[in-house]
Amino acid sequence: MRLFHRFTQGELHFGRIEAFSDGIFAVAVTLLVLDLKVPALDDHADVGALARGLVEQLSRFLSWLISFIIVCKFWLNHHYLLGFARHADYGFVWLNAIFLMGQSFIPFPTAMVGEYPGNSLAVSLFGCVFAINTLLFLLLQAYVVKRLIKPELAALQDPDALVKALVGPLSYLAGAVAAWFYTPAAFIIYALTPLFYITPRQGRAKPASGAVVE
Amino acid sequence: MRLFHRFTQGELHFGRIEAFSDGIFAVAVTLLVLDLKVPALDDHADVGALARGLVEQLSRFLSWLISFIIVCKFWLNHHYLLGFARHADYGFVWLNAIFLMGQSFIPFPTAMVGEYPGNSLAVSLFGCVFAINTLLFLLLQAYVVKRLIKPELAALQDPDALVKALVGPLSYLAGAVAAWFYTPAAFIIYALTPLFYITPRQGRAKPASGAVVE
Amino acid sequence: MRLFHRFTQGELHFGRIEAFSDGIFAVAVTLLVLDLKVPALDDHADVGALARGLVEQLSRFLSWLISFIIVCKFWLNHHYLLGFARHADYGFVWLNAIFLMGQSFIPFPTAMVGEYPGNSLAVSLFGCVFAINTLLFLLLQAYVVKRLIKPELAALQDPDALVKALVGPLSYLAGAVAAWFYTPAAFIIYALTPLFYITPRQGRAKPASGAVVE
Amino acid sequence: MRLFHRFTQGELHFGRIEAFSDGIFAVAVTLLVLDLKVPALDDHADVGALARGLVEQLSRFLSWLISFIIVCKFWLNHHYLLGFARHADYGFVWLNAIFLMGQSFIPFPTAMVGEYPGNSLAVSLFGCVFAINTLLFLLLQAYVVKRLIKPELAALQDPDALVKALVGPLSYLAGAVAAWFYTPAAFIIYALTPLFYITPRQGRAKPASGAVVE
Repeated sequence: MRLFHRFTQGELHFGRIEAFSDGIFAVAVTLLVLDLKVPALDDHADVGALARGLVEQLSRFLSWLISFIIVCKFWLNHHYLLGFARHADYGFVWLNAIFLMGQSFIPFPTAMVGEYPGNSLAVSLFGCVFAINTLLFLLLQAYVVKRLIKPELAALQDPDALVKALVGPLSYLAGAVAAWFYTPAAFIIYALTPLFYITPRQGRAKPASGAVVE
Repeated sequence: MRLFHRFTQGELHFGRIEAFSDGIFAVAVTLLVLDLKVPALDDHADVGALARGLVEQLSRFLSWLISFIIVCKFWLNHHYLLGFARHADYGFVWLNAIFLMGQSFIPFPTAMVGEYPGNSLAVSLFGCVFAINTLLFLLLQAYVVKRLIKPELAALQDPDALVKALVGPLSYLAGAVAAWFYTPAAFIIYALTPLFYITPRQGRAKPASGAVVE
Repeated sequence: MRLFHRFTQGELHFGRIEAFSDGIFAVAVTLLVLDLKVPALDDHADVGALARGLVEQLSRFLSWLISFIIVCKFWLNHHYLLGFARHADYGFVWLNAIFLMGQSFIPFPTAMVGEYPGNSLAVSLFGCVFAINTLLFLLLQAYVVKRLIKPELAALQDPDALVKALVGPLSYLAGAVAAWFYTPAAFIIYALTPLFYITPRQGRAKPASGAVVE
Repeated sequence: MRLFHRFTQGELHFGRIEAFSDGIFAVAVTLLVLDLKVPALDDHADVGALARGLVEQLSRFLSWLISFIIVCKFWLNHHYLLGFARHADYGFVWLNAIFLMGQSFIPFPTAMVGEYPGNSLAVSLFGCVFAINTLLFLLLQAYVVKRLIKPELAALQDPDALVKALVGPLSYLAGAVAAWFYTPAAFIIYALTPLFYITPRQGRAKPASGAVVE
């Protein structure tokens, strides 16, 4: 019984949870480069053909860039969120695992949208994956706030945090809808969404929950 | 002689063993996404063809999901087990290496079953790999319990732990047998097996060994 | 307000920033090996054909070698730079993310130049990527020196550091220009550039900023 | 001047050197699984064809197994060696980077020998790569013993260590020679070499340097 208590009381070391999480973030974000393909050339020395081949891949570079920034944003929010928890428990570990599953999935829609940037379904799914990932993060955040938050930080919670937090997923979903009308508009929305949240909101009385939302 | 003693007495730092293990877990679990292939389309903008291509890959998504959850489960058990050991020795390091070899192998049967979900051999081997991985984990666990357990935790051992522990591998093997009769049944068994063990058994007097079993 | 202060005052743990950075460095540098392709042989036992196939890949081995050394050099400089900072803030985290994006991109130009070593554009872009990466590092360094430097180290700054620091990018750019006239000359410049900076300059009064420049 | 001293005196944190090294070890060892290819089947449900396809890949499984064990052995020796050093300096970091370059290269000869197990050149190069890696490790070890060893451990050095240490590379080279006469003999030698050194030699008065040799 004592032993069981040890674990619900936080003896799941954050060190290893962070190491596992950081490993998945780092691998996912670096695997994205595998989607950038060297153009095939008939004449290996043909500079013009290589230049054209690279320009044709513009959508791959763009989706790589968007996904990289978004995963870094998730990593930063994850880092920030864990600073609020006084310990981990099994519920946290499993919600974290499901959140990381979403992160490690990102290279797939990135590759798909890089290959078919004009396909509404591909572009729309790209945004849906980010919306789902943001929701998974909000779930993790809600769990920490409800069950694991350090007592001295609990008072700093912003009651409007949940409403504000939904801005992120809604923005990605707006992009996912826009993809069915005009795909470039979707890309612009995807690229702008994380920019709104790069730093926590300064000059507020209760930045805690505002800072971690997507 | 003194130096040799230093190492059998636990001077193999857990820090690096954990870092190496977490790295392998994280890479293995993230490499799984490489098995998800972007469908080939004749008309890049053809939404219907992309949707059909994705649906045809349902088995790949499913095997990705099952393997991800199972590797996370192994990671959690590994994390939990190491909390019981007072130090590491060479026997532990090598059993751990062989266990990690099994973990890093998982992307291969996952890719195979994702490609041939109706092939009894592929589906059956998928389960056998999980059964072997669970046995390797039990071997590591038995070694820790026998030789490295912290004295204050030794009294908490459950004498029936080994019997209970075999439920995991037997369940995977049952799936491996079922694959020869009806492959969807095998998938269901594989997906359900880790769910039985997501949290340690609460409310028991001797949760120590019960919690780490698969 | 207090909470916000906590973060600008350095409660972004370096531990996780380093773990994420080291993960990306390690994955990027190890993914380089995927560009080395096993030569295709008609007769699997044909020793001569395998030898010829390997020799034909000489440019791939060479670009792998150059990129590996350069990424290790960046890792070392990154390690060194973080020793100067008293804490991290959001500006640092985002400049670091953009720098790491550049690092994780390196496998792409490496693969391109390994495949088309005689293509002036490929060889030139290889150097441009290194020049940009060095500039991104200098930006990160300037941010640390300006905003995050430990007070006791501030006095050690070298006023000529920026001028010296530009030698690295200029050398890579010289290689990128040389690629348009004679590609082997570019490879020699790329390979030699990091060698000039392998150790910090010894015997100087102000080695601090001199040591981290590329 | 003081700052420069700080670094030659060991302010290069082992923490990040270990994290970077463990990352490369973990990625290299896990990337090996990408060489295991799912057999191509005309009839996806054909159990016999899949079984034959897997058996034809026996050499890939074997080379995966040998490389995995050998990289784990290098990791263990690296871990052990770093316990002897009182700090790191630039010489150590660069020798370590070159050693890690050798480790990250291992997936290439592993893939080559897995594809052409009957090609004497492929099998021979496999052994040469391990011999070179062992020599790189011995170089790193010699550097630590000569310049960085903790004073209290220096007295434990074995004067015959270098001679004993050469057994490892010589054994791999013997396999590389054997490959030209009978390839299976080479595989047996490669597989047996690390086994001789799995644990440090017990019951000796000076196990320090004996334990880390390959």
